[in-house]
Amino acid sequence: MAVTAGGASNDVPPNIAAFLDTPTPDRWLDAATSRLPDLLLDHANCELKAASTAMGFLYRYPERTALAQRMSHLAREELRHFEQVRGIMAELDIPFRRLGASRYAGALRDEVRDREPYKLLDMLLVGALIEARSCERFARIAPRLPETLGRFYSGLLASEARHFEHYVAFAHRECGLGRDDVERRLTALKAVEAVLITDPDPEFRFHSGPPADQTPADSSNRQS
Amino acid sequence: MAVTAGGASNDVPPNIAAFLDTPTPDRWLDAATSRLPDLLLDHANCELKAASTAMGFLYRYPERTALAQRMSHLAREELRHFEQVRGIMAELDIPFRRLGASRYAGALRDEVRDREPYKLLDMLLVGALIEARSCERFARIAPRLPETLGRFYSGLLASEARHFEHYVAFAHRECGLGRDDVERRLTALKAVEAVLITDPDPEFRFHSGPPADQTPADSSNRQS
Repeated sequence: MAVTAGGASNDVPPNIAAFLDTPTPDRWLDAATSRLPDLLLDHANCELKAASTAMGFLYRYPERTALAQRMSHLAREELRHFEQVRGIMAELDIPFRRLGASRYAGALRDEVRDREPYKLLDMLLVGALIEARSCERFARIAPRLPETLGRFYSGLLASEARHFEHYVAFAHRECGLGRDDVERRLTALKAVEAVLITDPDPEFRFHSGPPADQTPADSSNRQS
Repeated sequence: MAVTAGGASNDVPPNIAAFLDTPTPDRWLDAATSRLPDLLLDHANCELKAASTAMGFLYRYPERTALAQRMSHLAREELRHFEQVRGIMAELDIPFRRLGASRYAGALRDEVRDREPYKLLDMLLVGALIEARSCERFARIAPRLPETLGRFYSGLLASEARHFEHYVAFAHRECGLGRDDVERRLTALKAVEAVLITDPDPEFRFHSGPPADQTPADSSNRQS
């Protein structure tokens, strides 16, 4: 594993790279390194939302003990990371506020079908993709960050690197569907996800696409 | 601290006893020891609800960093206990299902006023009362339980014994109200809470009152 002078690894773990196919565009990384307060703010929001999403499984599928235990454990880990990111934000005097769903999260959520067991399947596979993408970005961004922050993101990567595999395992185990059905759906969702992180995105977020070009004379200027 | 043969303490910590004034009636303890599956089921539900309640503060008051950090930490602890209770239930072949609000939780929630800062104050004080009562019951029930379960409840007591103090401290710190206003409201809510745990309750729950007497010829029998 390649390690930078700051001690942060810049390698995406092979299981995550293989799962995602499409890497994060360099232009997103450029934007992220120049917008650290926005990155941290959205990241804190993402950890909180990830915890809430994991807890949603406890409420929706209460009788599934193995799923509940795993999701409760994941929720605890995401909350711990939420606290850590907020701690860093507080040190850097970055105020926290809640952010609504990003294009990425909203579009993936729209893919979740209403009828069971497809709803559970889709929720688990979307969860897997979001977790894997988060880890890929932790790995890619870490070497570009100031040393302390880079080490923090490398630590998050180590802590969350297997989350997506738990989601995928439950997708196979809990939905009563054949392996081919699960894999076919995963392939379709991966294609949606790849478009979301490669298509130019008007808003910078932790899971956004590369920044859409802003011309100086954009529509809001033209009105004045 | 008095310790039983099984190693479980039967003393309510003095800070909790002083805070609550009114002890749990022995008749609730008699019911609880004879209904362990119901006790565990409701207890697991209570831990999950306590985690969700703590997380509610993160969503409702996102900009308050100290409150958010503490509540996130509390939520993690409640989730860990949820997992532990579910683990015990699984070992004992007790199925989990979600339970709606108990009389206790519903009635205390009804006391929460709509307008800020009274809403935040009431939510924090209700939280303090529920946490303190939970701990009092952990302490009182532990010596009456089979050894392993008794030790488990003593451990929960040790882990959660200061939760109510965090809630009270935030009530004083976060609401911008005078010490007398906070204390007056706490006195009023304590009175409501005391009635809820001493008045006969038709339903057995972790926070119920003593069982209401059931006559053999109740209304459902009389209809047939």
